[in-house]
Amino acid sequence: MSKPVYFEDLAVGQRLESSSVEMTEESMVRFSRDNDPQFFHVDPEAAKESMFGGLVGSGWQTGALTLRLLLEKSGLSFAGGVVGMDAHISWKRPVRPGDRLHIEGEITKLRASRSQPDRGFVTFRAATLNGDGETVQTIEATMLAFRDPARRA
Amino acid sequence: MSKPVYFEDLAVGQRLESSSVEMTEESMVRFSRDNDPQFFHVDPEAAKESMFGGLVGSGWQTGALTLRLLLEKSGLSFAGGVVGMDAHISWKRPVRPGDRLHIEGEITKLRASRSQPDRGFVTFRAATLNGDGETVQTIEATMLAFRDPARRA
Repeated sequence: MSKPVYFEDLAVGQRLESSSVEMTEESMVRFSRDNDPQFFHVDPEAAKESMFGGLVGSGWQTGALTLRLLLEKSGLSFAGGVVGMDAHISWKRPVRPGDRLHIEGEITKLRASRSQPDRGFVTFRAATLNGDGETVQTIEATMLAFRDPARRA
Repeated sequence: MSKPVYFEDLAVGQRLESSSVEMTEESMVRFSRDNDPQFFHVDPEAAKESMFGGLVGSGWQTGALTLRLLLEKSGLSFAGGVVGMDAHISWKRPVRPGDRLHIEGEITKLRASRSQPDRGFVTFRAATLNGDGETVQTIEATMLAFRDPARRA
């Protein structure tokens, strides 16, 4: 576990980069059976006849993984957890079994809450890349970040 | 299974409404263990000490469910499957165990692809509501929709 990060620890322009995680066929099928049961997400044989020519991961799995990489593998471990307010996601390329994904991004905006002095909002932009350096997804998201009670005047 | 829907079957202003699905604690914890393992998503006891005061679902699960409701329960069953291009999501309220979610929305834009005559893009806006009629999430998303080969000149 990294040290918890508070609003005060964040700066616009701060770079975010994670280690990589392999997307296995088994994890892709398991995710999609429960959450996105389309034939090109759950059936490797039938997927060959799809527009993708083979099994691809659900975009929702990539979205969730992106935030998890941010939380666990980039050192940006928010105190109180990651609470998303909104997100704008674009899915650029399919994710295929065996792809290793990592994220690269930066903090683009910080805003203190007007109504709640214990918190602020952090906006970041990040690309999720595969092992060939191709962008499979971009995201711009805003999350809650709590202030450090110890550093409040 | 509903009859497959093609680009030609869609109209701006077309209403989308789904039946509802119950979010069980078990499904919320299972999703989050794999995809979003924060304490307020996976540990009902620890979650009591969180800002939510109890277990809440992952926003990614709500996002995926919204598209699944659109696909399976609103009659908008795209030929070739649902392929998302981009999505703008806002998470408005926590989803708690026992909440029954459904979607209400409409198609806001249709655009034929310039480069690929076999397809177009459909944009919709939808709210995901709980059993009290409160909006837990809004989404505006653009997806691929194939043209019907039988109706092409």
